[in-house]
Amino acid sequence: MTQANFGVVGMAVMGRNLALNIESRGYTVAIFNRSKEKTEDVIASHPDKNFVPSYDIASFVSSIEKPRRIMLMVQAGPGTDATIQNLLPHLDKGDILIDGGNTFYKDTERRNTELADSGINFIGTGVSGGEKGALEGPSIMPGGQKEAYELVKDVLEEISAKAPEDGKPCVTYIGPAGAGHYVKMVHNGIEYGDMQLIAESYDLMQRLLGLSASDMQAVFAEWNKGELDSYLIEITTDILTHQDDQGQEGPVVDYILDAAGNKGTGKWTSQSALDSGVPLPLITESVFARYISTYKEERVAASKVLQAPDFKFEGDKVELIEKIRQALYFSKIMSYAQGFAQLRVASKDNEWNLPFGEIAAIWRAGCIIRARFLQKITDAYGRDEDLANLLLDEYFIDITAKYQSAVREVVAIAVQAGVPVPTFSSAIAYFDSYRSENLPANLIQAQRDYFGAHTYERKDKPGIYHYSWYEEK
Amino acid sequence: MTQANFGVVGMAVMGRNLALNIESRGYTVAIFNRSKEKTEDVIASHPDKNFVPSYDIASFVSSIEKPRRIMLMVQAGPGTDATIQNLLPHLDKGDILIDGGNTFYKDTERRNTELADSGINFIGTGVSGGEKGALEGPSIMPGGQKEAYELVKDVLEEISAKAPEDGKPCVTYIGPAGAGHYVKMVHNGIEYGDMQLIAESYDLMQRLLGLSASDMQAVFAEWNKGELDSYLIEITTDILTHQDDQGQEGPVVDYILDAAGNKGTGKWTSQSALDSGVPLPLITESVFARYISTYKEERVAASKVLQAPDFKFEGDKVELIEKIRQALYFSKIMSYAQGFAQLRVASKDNEWNLPFGEIAAIWRAGCIIRARFLQKITDAYGRDEDLANLLLDEYFIDITAKYQSAVREVVAIAVQAGVPVPTFSSAIAYFDSYRSENLPANLIQAQRDYFGAHTYERKDKPGIYHYSWYEEK
Repeated sequence: MTQANFGVVGMAVMGRNLALNIESRGYTVAIFNRSKEKTEDVIASHPDKNFVPSYDIASFVSSIEKPRRIMLMVQAGPGTDATIQNLLPHLDKGDILIDGGNTFYKDTERRNTELADSGINFIGTGVSGGEKGALEGPSIMPGGQKEAYELVKDVLEEISAKAPEDGKPCVTYIGPAGAGHYVKMVHNGIEYGDMQLIAESYDLMQRLLGLSASDMQAVFAEWNKGELDSYLIEITTDILTHQDDQGQEGPVVDYILDAAGNKGTGKWTSQSALDSGVPLPLITESVFARYISTYKEERVAASKVLQAPDFKFEGDKVELIEKIRQALYFSKIMSYAQGFAQLRVASKDNEWNLPFGEIAAIWRAGCIIRARFLQKITDAYGRDEDLANLLLDEYFIDITAKYQSAVREVVAIAVQAGVPVPTFSSAIAYFDSYRSENLPANLIQAQRDYFGAHTYERKDKPGIYHYSWYEEK
Repeated sequence: MTQANFGVVGMAVMGRNLALNIESRGYTVAIFNRSKEKTEDVIASHPDKNFVPSYDIASFVSSIEKPRRIMLMVQAGPGTDATIQNLLPHLDKGDILIDGGNTFYKDTERRNTELADSGINFIGTGVSGGEKGALEGPSIMPGGQKEAYELVKDVLEEISAKAPEDGKPCVTYIGPAGAGHYVKMVHNGIEYGDMQLIAESYDLMQRLLGLSASDMQAVFAEWNKGELDSYLIEITTDILTHQDDQGQEGPVVDYILDAAGNKGTGKWTSQSALDSGVPLPLITESVFARYISTYKEERVAASKVLQAPDFKFEGDKVELIEKIRQALYFSKIMSYAQGFAQLRVASKDNEWNLPFGEIAAIWRAGCIIRARFLQKITDAYGRDEDLANLLLDEYFIDITAKYQSAVREVVAIAVQAGVPVPTFSSAIAYFDSYRSENLPANLIQAQRDYFGAHTYERKDKPGIYHYSWYEEK
């Protein structure tokens, strides 16, 4: 019997598509699913593929050549632990488990530690690109033992997306233990930010300028030819072309309920930033924007009693559209500056030695946030791998100088018109805070010293001070 | 030997002041501290007070009348667990431990559960007011067994602050287990928001209008006479009068380093909101504003390379100051609306049955956020105890209608002038989102369905839908 070169556990759509992707590169792939129906369905749908199906875990494991390389594509959480426990008695030292789920990085760290004694290698890897990416080439962010990575590198490079700029595979060794899933988490947080920024642009064009879905389709199509060229702008353009499929007139987007769900990775990113002392306002505002969207009933009630401002935009529409484009690009830069600053702190705190430039490079294709823009980040880290913040790089200094007046104007108009722009306004607040030699936090620290004796430092000399606020003046 | 009526463990400043406060109401107070020096110091400094000092835990416990009422004022975290473990062998069924530290509410829940079998009651209580409040009358937020609360109610009411409006004690039974510390956590989050809003007002007057500390002292003094009347505005006014104590010319606030610390309660509030699906952007922006203030070195570097906008305010200064006042009040309303919405969700999720109106009432005196404004919140819940959001109450509908143009104008000016206003702009974004019948989240949900088959609901009919985005049009 032929030994499979690779195993995949979990035949839901992501696992199935990854198995097809691996098989398409010339590998024989062992497949297994907890319930046999899904495995049978894969075999029935793809009778000509080099799949080795198994219906019990022992047969599955023994059908794979050693050291075994087994990818887990099961539901993150207890499902992953259960799968590992089931596999463990059948594995040998040196085998490699690869968790490709959307796992919280601390769970990956725990599993990596728990498996260390058994001699089983454990790679936690981010896989981004959705169903299509899994099938055709995702962006892959693996973390774990470097030696183990070397044994799966060939397969991961083959199945990954290739960057259009230089054909390089969108996978690289991220770092030990939880590093891969941490980077995937921040990737997803950035995805929340990107989506909210596009949504605010769409909202401004719709509510302020009265553009229809088809008008906006043309705008986004145009934007996608320039520096905003990205998967999310591309699919936005495509979404706006689709007509309703339930018998209503006009584009389907107009009938979709404005209540955005989430699977928690954006929230994790914000919570991690809060734990690390990293300012991450833009992504966090985008998580909160999704939350407030789910309060549909309350919003409908509020819309009837809370007064709208009296404002009508009377400027040049075409000019404002270009300013919205610049505001979007500027705000996107703020979001990535914050996300990479968070990676920098996590890298230092966890001693991960994250390769920031390569991380941006492997996001250039395959994943949801893929964009031409990412090359600028790779370039910036190429100029200075210790860059404290992207905003201090020459490209970002120039482009923010050029685009800041647009974002200021767009926010000023939106605020006066009553169109909510939580991430646009958060972007400019971050920029202005970051470039402020002096912030009013001196007053906050004075208040803290006043009511809680929390002490303060001084601007003119080192040391820790407490002021006798209550004594006679 | 006289039995003490009450015990206090922990003779750091908060514990010492609370003990003095309790004693001043006619009680004999047993006191204990891990290291005896602090206890000796209290006795030496207050030889005439009815204190019963002990230097070992057994004597301390046996010096208190049963059922014993013992307040723990020790460092939150492992210190609290250690103290409980030390006390436990000496306690009897029915005794009451009261943790008055800044404890994370989940720790309080755990301790409450752990102690349940032993028959020891456990009250986790927020105590706000700083050192002065502890001594003269704090705001107290107790959670735990209702029966146990009844046994300490008299003492807590006596030592608490009294509201100036009606003389009522600033303490009430909050709810079971972790409810008290949860409410205290949100109180502290709101405190972060209030402080940042004041800081932004100060920054605008300073950077945009060129006001000096003494000019601003007059402004804040004036504000404190009206609807902004509050402890934090009062101490801001006072802070601005204090001259440097290290030999420099001018007010001390100008020499305090603009790097604001934090003890984590603001962060907890944001993280909890993120877990609960509650939009809490204003408090979260104020936590991030503290974080970015600590990046002083990077900010100094950024200030030299990131371009400032070219803007000079040429309007009427006095008018703008009044608009800043209105913007501050408006934004404060948004912050409290968010905080109380968070309490509402927590109350529902945990079945706490929180008394929202009373919570606002016990914050009217004693605590750091005490303010005339809180009466408006109590009034609103008096009109409708099931109010979904404060913004739907008649007072808040009227005042936001009246003040919204000011906050819009202030944010528009600040954004164009380059003065960061993360919480002001977050406030208006929340208001505009909340009063939006339609948000652009339909596009986000379309994107999610496009790349991840996450499905969506529709505006025109119930059900769950998935669109075939990739099929031929």
